[in-house]
Amino acid sequence: MTQNVYDNQEFFEGYSRLPRSVEGLEGAPEWPALREMVGDVRGLRVLDLGCGFGWFCRWAREQGASRVLGLDVSEKMLARARATTADAAVTYRRADLETLELSPAAFDVVYSSLALHYLERLDRLVGEIQRALGSGGRLIFSVEHPIYTAPEEPGWSTDAAGRQTWPVDRYLEEGPRSTDWLTKGVIKHHRTIGTYLGLLLGHGFTITHVEEWGPTSAQIAAKPSLAVERQRPAFLLVAARR
Amino acid sequence: MTQNVYDNQEFFEGYSRLPRSVEGLEGAPEWPALREMVGDVRGLRVLDLGCGFGWFCRWAREQGASRVLGLDVSEKMLARARATTADAAVTYRRADLETLELSPAAFDVVYSSLALHYLERLDRLVGEIQRALGSGGRLIFSVEHPIYTAPEEPGWSTDAAGRQTWPVDRYLEEGPRSTDWLTKGVIKHHRTIGTYLGLLLGHGFTITHVEEWGPTSAQIAAKPSLAVERQRPAFLLVAARR
Repeated sequence: MTQNVYDNQEFFEGYSRLPRSVEGLEGAPEWPALREMVGDVRGLRVLDLGCGFGWFCRWAREQGASRVLGLDVSEKMLARARATTADAAVTYRRADLETLELSPAAFDVVYSSLALHYLERLDRLVGEIQRALGSGGRLIFSVEHPIYTAPEEPGWSTDAAGRQTWPVDRYLEEGPRSTDWLTKGVIKHHRTIGTYLGLLLGHGFTITHVEEWGPTSAQIAAKPSLAVERQRPAFLLVAARR
Repeated sequence: MTQNVYDNQEFFEGYSRLPRSVEGLEGAPEWPALREMVGDVRGLRVLDLGCGFGWFCRWAREQGASRVLGLDVSEKMLARARATTADAAVTYRRADLETLELSPAAFDVVYSSLALHYLERLDRLVGEIQRALGSGGRLIFSVEHPIYTAPEEPGWSTDAAGRQTWPVDRYLEEGPRSTDWLTKGVIKHHRTIGTYLGLLLGHGFTITHVEEWGPTSAQIAAKPSLAVERQRPAFLLVAARR
């Protein structure tokens, strides 16, 4: 089973203080790009894999989705999602994404934000998503960018000339990476962009959009600390059609 | 017009001594992966954009391509390509890929090895390729990987712990990069993977394969100096269908 770091008290408390936890979707700088990729969800059945506090689920319903299901491995996050959602068309369920089983053609849109890089086995889930989407159904997801997950010791470096760089190593060595983020020993699974796209193609998806996310000029003007994020992409955003 | 660095005497002499120039396709470690992506060319009309010494053109013809056209901006390279090809079905022509015009549906396979990252304007060429391919036609190309082209000062770095890394900066700042490779002031144009794929999608291509190339274990066993190439991908390989 996937490491359930979100139910670790130290991690959960740290995660709960992040802008994206406090402010919701608007606190996530990549959200405007993702929202564009999600597009119109009116009348559609939406599934969110790794729904966290339910911000996206509630947004999708507000946009007119007919039914929204949010899945997460964390009991703590689901409890807060349920406590802050008052809508019978939005439901939450605990699930391990590595062993998840979904009904065929049950959804029109599958969404996942920064969850899939925690999974050791992704191929099985992509097949499950493929079957759960009706014909023409869409998958939109974000993961930490491989440049971000690859290094043995991820972090910024400043060279003698003052140049701020992100040293990359082990990019082509896929597999687990243990990092200390909010708590010690958080396990992520590094994959190349080629592998992410290959998993989709292998299950018959058509790739419709690939974006290596960085902040816009307007976002940097509003929050100058984001500027460094243009040196290397933090997130990979992908959209595909069944 | 694209910088024609290949006709610079110093660059040309250096390039002529590279394994891929002396040994041909077998001297290029990414060739086995590209060959797999090219697949069967029997009876097909093949175009090579940036054909260099003509190694791929001759290979395609030997594999049964019905007609092969090699285009390059370098007179020096075309002269050697012509001098080493004795086959009326293989022709070479000088062309600037940024202003190239091709006949509609004139080719079944378009191939390009490590040429497109020299072009400032790529969008126009992708449209030209799209029109030049018949329905079901295929495009296969390699470029220097964005991790390789991004840095202001590309190169390996060794940190205090002896860890060899490839420091990345400016990844999201697309545009020209001046590097000293074989000669001074070689201009390459950095683009993200998202941009390369977006150009294809924007012209109606279906993406069929994306590979961030690194040497295999067998290749490293045969040539241990290749091992470092697994720390970061040197090449991006892409296949798409019209």
